[in-house]
Amino acid sequence: MNAKTMEIEQFIDVLASKAAVPGGGGASALTGAIGTALASMVGNLTVGKKKYKEVEEQIRAQMEEAEQIQKQLLELIDKDAEAFEPLSKAYGLPKETEEQLCYRNQVMEEALWKASLVPLEIMETVSEAISILEVMAEKGSRLAVSDAGVGVQFCRSALLGASLNVFINTKLMKDRERAQQLNSRCDKLIEDGVRRADAVFDIVMKEIRK
Amino acid sequence: MNAKTMEIEQFIDVLASKAAVPGGGGASALTGAIGTALASMVGNLTVGKKKYKEVEEQIRAQMEEAEQIQKQLLELIDKDAEAFEPLSKAYGLPKETEEQLCYRNQVMEEALWKASLVPLEIMETVSEAISILEVMAEKGSRLAVSDAGVGVQFCRSALLGASLNVFINTKLMKDRERAQQLNSRCDKLIEDGVRRADAVFDIVMKEIRK
Repeated sequence: MNAKTMEIEQFIDVLASKAAVPGGGGASALTGAIGTALASMVGNLTVGKKKYKEVEEQIRAQMEEAEQIQKQLLELIDKDAEAFEPLSKAYGLPKETEEQLCYRNQVMEEALWKASLVPLEIMETVSEAISILEVMAEKGSRLAVSDAGVGVQFCRSALLGASLNVFINTKLMKDRERAQQLNSRCDKLIEDGVRRADAVFDIVMKEIRK
Repeated sequence: MNAKTMEIEQFIDVLASKAAVPGGGGASALTGAIGTALASMVGNLTVGKKKYKEVEEQIRAQMEEAEQIQKQLLELIDKDAEAFEPLSKAYGLPKETEEQLCYRNQVMEEALWKASLVPLEIMETVSEAISILEVMAEKGSRLAVSDAGVGVQFCRSALLGASLNVFINTKLMKDRERAQQLNSRCDKLIEDGVRRADAVFDIVMKEIRK
């Protein structure tokens, strides 16, 4: 799969189908990329304007970061699909003899671990995007403040969406200590990311409705 | 613009640019379409399975609705861009004489009204998608329950994202009564939609982490 070059309707049709990939993980990466693009949009509407000369350097630095994150998230759509393949193969392994079952468990455990790392990476990446949107909402052009508010909602949903895709994998892991470590990492990212996203959105909403 | 046939990366690059459209409104329609596609995915993984024979008819009906909504939301990306054009033109009208100013105000008022109706339609459409995701999360295949949870987060963010695009227009409307009517409609959609989306997500999260 090469999600980037797929037509929007084509991607959405495959997502809607019963094909195993893309699923909620890849869709979260895409939604995070859309949110990050809105951060760039605010930046592009800010730089070069006299009124925002003082923050221009800071905005430009954030825009560079946003561009990287956007690219990374688009790559993560494919990476999520690739990580699902070994998991899907592991499910298909025979489990009739004790030996087969033991081997299957081993392969499965490794595949679950790898499949949970991609949505975790999506979570970490959209958390960074939320930080960029914080700056854009605070210091970017007031004419585009609503776009920062929209972007932060998308990244919030991508964060929570990706977390479900970590939890469905860690739930099945036999190594509970490793699973718990991943879960705590997710919980921290959710707590921090949702709090920050909601704070940005509240500020934007208040500014727009005052 | 024909968003449907644009490549994903191409659309995201235009979104990130300083081009006036697509902006937060069109991006909300797209994110809503992605969320709705996940409802269809859950449906497709449910129908035809013995275990879900009893709910098959209900799920099929929801899937048909989801397909319509998904199409509608993809069309709304373009519709939002089209509604922005007259508004952008109104801003450019001369405002030197009393007469020009009066005409400009009149054109502007009409353009603001029309530009706020599209994001309102996006809000109404994703609210319906949330209802479908409610059914999918409750009665669809348990193997895809996380996808229903992801979808509902996307529709929640699309609802809130689109609302900002109503509020930026109603804020500038001179006819405050009409503006207030639109705002109250938004407030109701937000209150109802966010509450339902959060309830679905909580149930999904609890099921996955139990």
